This record gives sequence, structure tokens and C-alpha cells, in this order.
Amino acid sequence: MASIFGTLFRVSTFGESHGAGVGCIIDGCPPKIALTEADLQLELDRRRPGQSKITTPRKEEDKAEILSGVVDGLTLGTPIAILVRNKDQRSEAYKEIETAYRPSHADYTYDAKYGIRAIAGGGRSSARETIGRVAAGAIAKKVLTGAWADYECLAYVKSIHDIEASQVSSLAPLASVTESNIVRTCDPEAAEKMIALIERVRSEGNSVGGIIECVVRGVRPGLGEPVFDKLEADLAKAMMSLPATKGFEIGSGFAGTRMTGSEHNDQFYMERGRDLPAAESPTRVRTRTNRSGGIQGGISNGEDIVFRIAFKPTATILQAQPTVSSEHEDTILKARGRHDPCVLPRAVPIVEAMTHLVLCDHFLRQRAQNK
Amino acid sequence: MASIFGTLFRVSTFGESHGAGVGCIIDGCPPKIALTEADLQLELDRRRPGQSKITTPRKEEDKAEILSGVVDGLTLGTPIAILVRNKDQRSEAYKEIETAYRPSHADYTYDAKYGIRAIAGGGRSSARETIGRVAAGAIAKKVLTGAWADYECLAYVKSIHDIEASQVSSLAPLASVTESNIVRTCDPEAAEKMIALIERVRSEGNSVGGIIECVVRGVRPGLGEPVFDKLEADLAKAMMSLPATKGFEIGSGFAGTRMTGSEHNDQFYMERGRDLPAAESPTRVRTRTNRSGGIQGGISNGEDIVFRIAFKPTATILQAQPTVSSEHEDTILKARGRHDPCVLPRAVPIVEAMTHLVLCDHFLRQRAQNK
Amino acid sequence: MASIFGTLFRVSTFGESHGAGVGCIIDGCPPKIALTEADLQLELDRRRPGQSKITTPRKEEDKAEILSGVVDGLTLGTPIAILVRNKDQRSEAYKEIETAYRPSHADYTYDAKYGIRAIAGGGRSSARETIGRVAAGAIAKKVLTGAWADYECLAYVKSIHDIEASQVSSLAPLASVTESNIVRTCDPEAAEKMIALIERVRSEGNSVGGIIECVVRGVRPGLGEPVFDKLEADLAKAMMSLPATKGFEIGSGFAGTRMTGSEHNDQFYMERGRDLPAAESPTRVRTRTNRSGGIQGGISNGEDIVFRIAFKPTATILQAQPTVSSEHEDTILKARGRHDPCVLPRAVPIVEAMTHLVLCDHFLRQRAQNK
Amino acid sequence: MASIFGTLFRVSTFGESHGAGVGCIIDGCPPKIALTEADLQLELDRRRPGQSKITTPRKEEDKAEILSGVVDGLTLGTPIAILVRNKDQRSEAYKEIETAYRPSHADYTYDAKYGIRAIAGGGRSSARETIGRVAAGAIAKKVLTGAWADYECLAYVKSIHDIEASQVSSLAPLASVTESNIVRTCDPEAAEKMIALIERVRSEGNSVGGIIECVVRGVRPGLGEPVFDKLEADLAKAMMSLPATKGFEIGSGFAGTRMTGSEHNDQFYMERGRDLPAAESPTRVRTRTNRSGGIQGGISNGEDIVFRIAFKPTATILQAQPTVSSEHEDTILKARGRHDPCVLPRAVPIVEAMTHLVLCDHFLRQRAQNK
Repeated sequence: MASIFGTLFRVSTFGESHGAGVGCIIDGCPPKIALTEADLQLELDRRRPGQSKITTPRKEEDKAEILSGVVDGLTLGTPIAILVRNKDQRSEAYKEIETAYRPSHADYTYDAKYGIRAIAGGGRSSARETIGRVAAGAIAKKVLTGAWADYECLAYVKSIHDIEASQVSSLAPLASVTESNIVRTCDPEAAEKMIALIERVRSEGNSVGGIIECVVRGVRPGLGEPVFDKLEADLAKAMMSLPATKGFEIGSGFAGTRMTGSEHNDQFYMERGRDLPAAESPTRVRTRTNRSGGIQGGISNGEDIVFRIAFKPTATILQAQPTVSSEHEDTILKARGRHDPCVLPRAVPIVEAMTHLVLCDHFLRQRAQNK
Repeated sequence: MASIFGTLFRVSTFGESHGAGVGCIIDGCPPKIALTEADLQLELDRRRPGQSKITTPRKEEDKAEILSGVVDGLTLGTPIAILVRNKDQRSEAYKEIETAYRPSHADYTYDAKYGIRAIAGGGRSSARETIGRVAAGAIAKKVLTGAWADYECLAYVKSIHDIEASQVSSLAPLASVTESNIVRTCDPEAAEKMIALIERVRSEGNSVGGIIECVVRGVRPGLGEPVFDKLEADLAKAMMSLPATKGFEIGSGFAGTRMTGSEHNDQFYMERGRDLPAAESPTRVRTRTNRSGGIQGGISNGEDIVFRIAFKPTATILQAQPTVSSEHEDTILKARGRHDPCVLPRAVPIVEAMTHLVLCDHFLRQRAQNK
Repeated sequence: MASIFGTLFRVSTFGESHGAGVGCIIDGCPPKIALTEADLQLELDRRRPGQSKITTPRKEEDKAEILSGVVDGLTLGTPIAILVRNKDQRSEAYKEIETAYRPSHADYTYDAKYGIRAIAGGGRSSARETIGRVAAGAIAKKVLTGAWADYECLAYVKSIHDIEASQVSSLAPLASVTESNIVRTCDPEAAEKMIALIERVRSEGNSVGGIIECVVRGVRPGLGEPVFDKLEADLAKAMMSLPATKGFEIGSGFAGTRMTGSEHNDQFYMERGRDLPAAESPTRVRTRTNRSGGIQGGISNGEDIVFRIAFKPTATILQAQPTVSSEHEDTILKARGRHDPCVLPRAVPIVEAMTHLVLCDHFLRQRAQNK
Repeated sequence: MASIFGTLFRVSTFGESHGAGVGCIIDGCPPKIALTEADLQLELDRRRPGQSKITTPRKEEDKAEILSGVVDGLTLGTPIAILVRNKDQRSEAYKEIETAYRPSHADYTYDAKYGIRAIAGGGRSSARETIGRVAAGAIAKKVLTGAWADYECLAYVKSIHDIEASQVSSLAPLASVTESNIVRTCDPEAAEKMIALIERVRSEGNSVGGIIECVVRGVRPGLGEPVFDKLEADLAKAMMSLPATKGFEIGSGFAGTRMTGSEHNDQFYMERGRDLPAAESPTRVRTRTNRSGGIQGGISNGEDIVFRIAFKPTATILQAQPTVSSEHEDTILKARGRHDPCVLPRAVPIVEAMTHLVLCDHFLRQRAQNK
């Protein structure tokens, strides 16, 4: 449904930008998972506004309160409700958009759909809605790491506008690299250029977009479904449900359309004798290349799951733009307010959260049908 | 769930390639929609194997039988079951793959998931599974054209390998152009080159992929949901649930990441005085560009919905490939059998069918909540 | 799912008795419904503990806070989150049940299911969980009365133990009668006897059960579904999902099994010339009797929907009872604490709430498929 | 949804009485369950018309064909489609009801809902719709007996009109008793009287109803959910979704409302030293009485699950009845055709089937969340 995600590990989110608060209920979480508010805060702090000079200066501490479902640091198996109160609200900054539809934003379509909308802060279309996702994702991650000790999910900025990070060769040191620069890219050299670019477009009242890549390790073979709920289909939906996304590709993606079958196919081979983390058997089916991106026929094959998401430049810019009013008259909008000139640095933990949610749901589904 | 798609207009598909048959049940179809088996056959014939020299020579007439839900050419509002019997089965052609996993196919992952699989014809991972989707999509289309007289959904091949069709300027004559060439591209000149390429790779036992674009006109503003079930998210899931897809992008897509916000934003303006098809008012909110691809904040804005899907080269090729056996021994596979060297020409009606399904579902959802 | 109810008007509840709070998210509510916290409070006050001498003396004011989905007194169409903080918690009263399973309560089965449970207050199995249902039901009621001006749903106590209320002849004055006595029965004379009985069993540390009847007027013909989601099936599930319920019957119910078909059938006739409230036509299909209880073939027929629910005597009694401990040793439990000696007076608004939820969901479903 | 049942073990049914056929798709069945068409036929033959002198003389052999999901006698984990062709159709017998609404039948409400209906045979409201349920239930039963060797589910006729079967003392010989008489009651003496009564009312063109009881053994503690999807709530919905049902009660049921808490509570004790079938431990938590009916707080406690369902007398009788026409004129209907004067004997396997479906779904759900 509209604001409910998942089949067995189900997240129901709520909240407008300028209402009392935002949050979620997680239904279907396994019991006896160790969980504290600090686990959630760790991830929420990564998506928090005001965390660096290239994000919005809005100050929200985004403190998560667990309202139910956890006693003495352990989940009960019953719904976990999480609430984050809204704090830094300056509704006066939204006077302009009361009557003028912001281009490439959701103002017009909300009116077209509901005949009413929460104007301040963009209401439900605000990026604050993703707080519930990040909190829920932090819980999904705990379920997965409890099941697979070597489970790792790492997203990072692959490009900002026309600045591309160099190829990632090994995941091992990646987490520390990504978190060592405020743009959250995997390439420290590119980071400098990206930051400079973001600061420049901000000073011009403009914005930029880019591409985030996500690599997931440790997922066992067999997750996913053969038809509609293919693992890549559910990942695509999860990512395309994030604000500002315009594209999703997995493995070889769009570039793979320029290969022939003999170039594209991932040949299988038996891996032997290696120190296989968390494997029960000394041999394992592997592929020599990974153009499949870790999923074949909708089902994980044990290789790294690798996908990329395109984020458009932030729609809210501080330049005058022709548009129409809610009374359907042509007008000019010059937005004020505090906005991210580039959403990607803060989107990294959100991409990870959605990945955890999809994988945790399929993990439980797999256990139900094929244990 | 695994083989059920949709919230209100729900399709449940079944069938393996070499079982008794394939088909679906549609639950939730509105009553009193005119429907005959010929309506289904029209679309099924477009996805049928053996329809041209560049598709698989497999001969399946794919005759659809409506088992329920329709009396005297009108839907009853109760479940519509559709059955297509399997005919041209040559199981001997699958002897090789009984023991050897086909690279980049679903053989290994099905075994990893279920511990069992239908070997002949690829079982459930066969493209025959899409027959149920196409039949259901034909019904969804009838619901939509009944509601919106000017509703049109047209998919076409945008590129095959490195051959790109020229830009589409107007939709008007598009359907006839697309169906006038066997590759189903919108550019008759490119069609010749594409056909020649496909014939060449087939002769080499190889395969190619490409990109399909889909344009949808006549969708009213207001369809979609603001959070998880964004219209583009459900379209992405629908497309990424098709066999051989590796990417999805809408509107500006991945290329949009190289624009700035001021370049990318779609400015609104009021359209007046024109002869607006099926509009109730003489003015209409429009955008001057359509980088949003017809969807903003997850909700349709009345502009054309435009998206693209990447299809990888067919995994089944007739060249020797190193792989592993189901007993986990390294081996060599040289597949036989009749396969499409390029799936795109037959994928065009399938893309349209999935589009109809997503839009029909959201049309009913919109009517329920916001009539 | 476990804690999510409904197909289109979806309620997700959360909360343990002694956690931070209880509440719910409603997803799918139509926009522009007038709604204030007072609307919720009205119904919450009817289920509140401590409201009369025959309910538990626990004092909870149960103040509802709307966290999202409503701006300036109107629903937005986006999720409505409601929070009620827990206040009057005396965890020491639960020391006895930490180790001893309360007979006919959920202590043992929660442990069997989850391997963990929230002991204080019964956790999720507490009647406090119904707060979310009552709040959500209040919103569903507003949707329904907005659609059908003459919609009325009235539940009342039909019997307590062996004291039966006399038959209800007309609904007209019923609401005032029911709310005029603290046991919420439709028969003021029986009320005195029921109250005396409840006070007597309380003084003995014992408890009693009874039957609640619910009458719904103004539901238009056509609501419900023909097969699994029959209207009576969804009502049965809704009522049997309430704590302490042991039975559900509609129309003639169990007594109807002792009639013949010719006695039981409800003959149709045409009603004419009457002042039909909210009817668009001067004639209407009616039945002379209503053994069907307002539903035929799973679909409402426009007659009053009438059903009854059996509530067992409260499981928590203040007498010593043999039982087993969580360490699986035989033991004796003598519960302390403040409990309702009879749940029915407070269950009346909960039955109404669940009825509103079922009907509102089917109202939206009907609008989607058969507008 | 309307014609889809279950969360993980999902059944989608289709088919009208006089269409091409009826059947279902089961999505989510675990793989490697031994399954043949004979397994289905065994149960279908128990619900078949024409099986004895007290059922309808309609002759349908109801042969089930498995269309997908099974290879070499083993389930694949993919959807299992089942088709039963309709055979013995005499549409002329339905001429009368083309225009006259049958009292207490679904003719009027279908028209009110959909504005169209399949007249012959009652269309979707026909009892033939239950064929899909019985076939799916047979598969669910195989999943459950594979998991729990001692799983048993037995339904039987408890009363017909005012003739009651004597109390069942032990389940052991019950199956053979129930199947030894054509009325499927647990009391051979009562069987004679019941059969005589049914034959008498048939000769009078009349009908009778009654009560079916169902006992389930071997269900492990922990199945079910604490709130909306309580095990008894899902059983109630399942049973109330069957044609002709008017009531459901579990354990003490409506009679339990006349007991006090001290009389009603089921005391726990430890069972030791016995030869416990399929138990892993030599001791087990038991209750001395079973007024809970095997479920506490929505979750199974390991005791027998015991419930009863009220079936009204068959609505179709062969006597003249006042009614209205589809043109809304008063008229008289005298039905012809071949009907069951009492649905209970054939309803017994249907009740069992729905029980298997509910329990199998909760078995998979339990495995997913709490393995």
C-alpha cells in the first residue's frame, strides 16, 4: 500500500515535514534481536540535515524514540514503533510556495491527487519521510547481520554531475573511505572536486545530481522470487521509491546492452580450498565475472549484489523560475529556504536502509517457504 | 507475493514451459468491460514465438481460453481465468542442461532456492511465463481505454546493441511504424540494420540486447502514491520483473545526473484555447519540458509518461561455455535448442502489458481513495 | 499481517501495556475528511478504564495526539499517526505473573511463539492494544457518515452471564438508552441486575462474560465480496480478533440451524411511497424478515446488518489458581492488580470501531471496482 | 482480496458454476512435497455432488488436472494451478431465476454490486466455487502432515436441525465413524435420524441446516498472531467465507458466556512421563480443560483446536415463494433444479480444507518470523 513496504518485514511510515513528527511501525520483526535507540541513531545521524557544509543548514537532531516492541534491549516480535519529533520548523519560509507550484516538485501532483496538501516543508513529499525508512533499515540490518555474520551493505557516491569516482577494486577498506569524506564517495581524490562543485552550485542557487552505487556482500544464494518479486525488481522499486531518483540498473545495466551474449554471460566455476567466510562447505559455485550483479532469474547467486541509482539535481533551487499558481495562473517563483544543493551525500544511508529492508523481507520469505 | 501482482487489479500467473499450460487469474477487474478471447489473442500473437525470421523458430500458436469471469462478452467482476496450453515441446533438446547450469540463466539459483527445478524448457524461468502477463495486460488496457478514450501506450525498440533508432518526434503515426517492421523499432531505417545484426549474431550462435522505450499518453494527473508505491517505483518493479532486464530509467534518467537543477526542472505553464482531448476544462497545467517523465513526487502530472528498459543479450547462446554441473563439477556446456537471438522484438508487447497492469491498478486505487 | 488490518483503509497498530505508548497509523484514508483529536477522544473515553464503578479502577486518561496526516482539521490523504502515551503503570503488581502463567491468558502462548514476552501488564496482549483500533474506527466512522448521512452503527450489551436484555424493537432511541447506563445495555431494567451481578462477582474476585449485539443501519447494497472476503467473514475476523471473544453469529446465527428453509428464507418485496432516507429512488428492494442479517452471498443487501459476539469471562481473577511457571514447574497463582470483572461495557465502543473499519474498507473497495 | 486467501500459502480461486471450469492457483507452496492428482481427487470426491441419496443428484465427476508446479510427483515451489472442467450443466433449469431473485440467495446482491451476474447455476455464488478450496486444502494438508506426523483435522456433523449427535469422547476412531455414514456425523445412531429427516424435507421441497464441529490435533504451540490475525480470527473468517454459514464459535463459544471466570479458566499443569507423540521433550505444558479451544491470545497452545460452524438451511427450496424480479416487480418464484436439501454432509471436507489452509499459512508465517 501507499505507505506500507514489505511482505513479512513490513514498514509503515508516517509524517509530514512540519507536523508533530515522523516515524514508522515495523511489523514482523523476529524476536530476541538486540536493539537500542543508539542503533537507530547511528544511521539517523548519517542522514541528518546540517551534518556538513555541503548539506542543508537546517538543524534537526532527529532523536529517535522507540515506543514499543522492545523490552530490556531485545525485540519482542511485536510491532516496533519509532517516533522522531520535528523541531526546526520555519513555516514562514514557505509563504512563496503556498500559491506557486515549485517546478519538478510534488506540489501540483499532490493537489491533483488529493485536492489538498500540507504546504509547509513540502509535507509528505519532504525528505524527512525517509527518517522512518532509515530507522527501519537499521533494524533490518541487525536481523541480517545476526543471520549472516559476514553480511555487508555499502553504498557510496559514484558520480556528482560529470565528476566520476574511480572504480572500486575491493570492498574491504571501503566503509572507512566512504565515511572519511563528507560527500561519501569511494574515491578520496574525486571527493575534493565533488565538494568544490557542490559548494559552487550552492553559491549560484543551483543544484546537482549524480549516481550512487551499492555493493552487498554475504547474501546467501536462494533469496528472491522467480516472477514478479524478483530480487532486482524489489530493489528497483525500493530505490525508485526514494525522492529524486530517475534510474536504476543492476550488474552490467544499460552498458550491458552493448555486449553480445558470449561477452556478457557469467561463466560458472567451482571455488575450492579458500577460506570461505561463513560457508558450510569447502567448495562453492562462483562466477568468473559478475555482469548479473549477484542475481540470476530473480534469485541471488551468492556473488556481490551491485546496483546503481540515478539521482536528479535537487528540484528546489534559489533562482527565479516561471511556473503556475495553485489558482492556475502563470507566475514566477523564487524559492527561499534551506535546501541541499545535492542530495547524494545524505542519500547514501537511505539507499543502504532500503537495501536492508528488501533483503530482510526476502530472507524471512525464503525461511518460510524453503527452510 | 511471488506470483501475484497488483493491489486491486491483481494478476496471479502460473505455468512452466513444458507443463500442461500457462496462464493467469485476474482478480478485481471491474464488471461490464467488453472482453473476448480475440482481445487477448491480438496481444498474444505479438509476443508469439515463430512470428518472424528474427525470433525463435519454436512454433506455439498460444491460443487463449477464457475459463471464467466473462459471460456474453462482458466481464462479471469476478475472477477471470485464462489458460494457454503448451504445445511444441521437445524435451530432448534439454538433455544438456539437465546436469550443466547455463551461464547467466536461472538454473543454479532455482536449485539453490528450491532444491528442485523443472529442467525442460527452463520451467518457470521460461519466457512462456509472460503469456499470463500479456493476457492480463490486454484486459487492463480495456479498462483504461474505457475510462480514458485517449489512453495510448506504445513501446518500441530504441536500440539493439550499438544501433540506435533516431528520436521519436510525435506519437501519432508511431504504432503503425513500430508494427511495420519485425524488430518493432520506431525508426524504419534503423530497422534494416538491426535485423541484419540480429541475423548475423544468430548465425554465429551468439545474441544481442538493447533498449526499449515506452511512451504513455492520456494518463490523468493524480495517479500514483507519494511514498513506497510511487508510480515510477511500481513501473520499475514491473519492468525489472521481466526476464533479461538490467535497468530502468524514467524521463531524464541517468543522463539527467549531468544536468544542473536549473537545466533539469520542468517549468509549469497554463495551456489554453487548444482542443484538449477528453479534458473537462479549457485550460490545463502543463510543463514546457518533460524531464520528469510524466511523474512528479510519485504521482502522474498529465504529461507523457516516458521510460526506458535495458535488456541484456539472451543468455542462451549456441557456443561452448565453461560452467559447472548440478553435481558441482566443472564442465563445458554447448546448448542446443531454439532460442531468440534477441528478445526485444517480442518484449515490446510484454512491456506494454506490464504498463497497462500498473496503470490500471493505480487507476482503481485512485478511484477508491480520491474519487 | 499480524498487526495490520484492512485492504485499502489500513490500520497498523503498535504498543504494549507498559511501554511508552500505544497507537496506530491509518494508511489510505480519503483526503478532506474533517478530523480533530476531539473526534478520537469521544470514542476513546467510552473505552477508557476507570470510567465507572464496574470497570477497572486503573486510571488512564488516554489522551490521543494526532502526529501526522491532518492539517487545519482536514485529512490530507497521507498516513494519520496517533499516539496515546501510557501513564498509570504499576509494574510491581505483575511480580506474580513474571514466573507463573495466568490460566486462559496469553502468557504461555507468547513464550511458546516468541521465546520472550513483555511481562508487565500483559504486554501486547493487554486490552490497551485496542486503543489504536478505537482511534482508527473513529476516523472510519467519519468517512462513512460523510458518504452516507444516515449511517449508524450501534453495539450494546445483550446479556451478561445469564441475565438477558429484552429484545430491541427500534433503533431510534437506542443510542441514548445504551449510553444512559454504565453497563451499556439496551434494556434499562436489565441494566440494574447486570450491574449488581458484576459488582458481586468482583467482590468475590471472580468475573463474568456475555454477549454484545451490533446493529448497523444505512449501509448501501453492494458492499462485500463474493468469496473469501465476504462481508460477514471480514466482520467475523474483526470481532474474533478482539481479546476474550469466543463466538460470532450473524442474522439467525446458531438458532437458525433449527429452522427449515421455508421458515428461514427472507422474502423480497418492493417498498414504495415511503420517505426513504438518502435513497435516490422512490422504491427499494426490501426483505420482510432479516434472518440474513443484512448480508446475502457475502454482499450487503441494504437491510440492517445485525450480529452478535460472545465474550468469555475475564481470564484474570483474584482467586488462587493452579498453573505452571515459566520454568515449567507446577505452581499456584494468586493474581493482584486492577482488572475489569466484566469486559463488555468497555468492549461496546471497540466492537463499533471494528465494524466501522470493516465497512469503510469495503466502501472504498466497492468504489474502486464498481463505481 | 476478493478471491485470494492467505498471506504466504496463497490460494486464488476462479470459476462460475456454468462456465468452462473452476479451479485455483496455489502460490507459495514449499517445494519437494509429494503430490499427485489422486491426492486432490480423494478430497474432491468427498465434496462431489451425487455421492449419496441425500445430496443433489447433479452428476459431476469433478476430475482435477494439475496444470503446473509439479514435476514427477513433487512440488517445485512455483505456482500450482488446478483445473476442474464443468460438465453437467442444464441451463434451462435456471430460466425462472433469470428474472426472479431467489430469496436468501445472492442474486439480488450480485446485481446490486456489479450490475451484472452469471445467471446459470448461480455463477460465482455456486457451491462449485469451493472446489478450488478443497483442492488447495488437500495440498496444505500434505505440507502440514509432512511437518507434523501426528497432525489430524476432522470435521463432522454435530447436529441437523434439532437432531444432535452425542458428544465425541475420543478422536481416535472418529474418521472411520464419520465416513461410515452418508451424513458424516460422529454418532452412528443419530445418523439414521438425520438421514430420515433430510429425505423427508427433500420430499417436501424444503431444506434443513445444522452445525459442523471440527477438531484439530497435533498443532504445535506458537501458531497464530497476537492481534488482528489471531488464529481463531483467521479460522472464523475462513469458515464464515463458506456459503450458507451463519455462525462460528471456538472452545466454550456462546455457552461460555454463562460461566464465571473461575469456572471457565483452563488450568495449566505439567504432563510428564507419557509417550508424547512427536514431542522433543518428555514434559509438556497442558491444560486440564479446553474451554479455550486450543488457542489463547490468538496463538495455539498445543491442545486440540475445537470449533463449530452454523449452516443455515439451503436457500434454494422447491416451494413457491414471494419475491421480486430483476425489474423490481413483485412476483412469485417456484424454483426447479437439483439441489442439496442439506449442505452439511458435503460441507465437511470443505471445512477441513479451509482449516488446512489457515493452519498451513500460519505454519509458514511462524517459520519465517520465529524459526
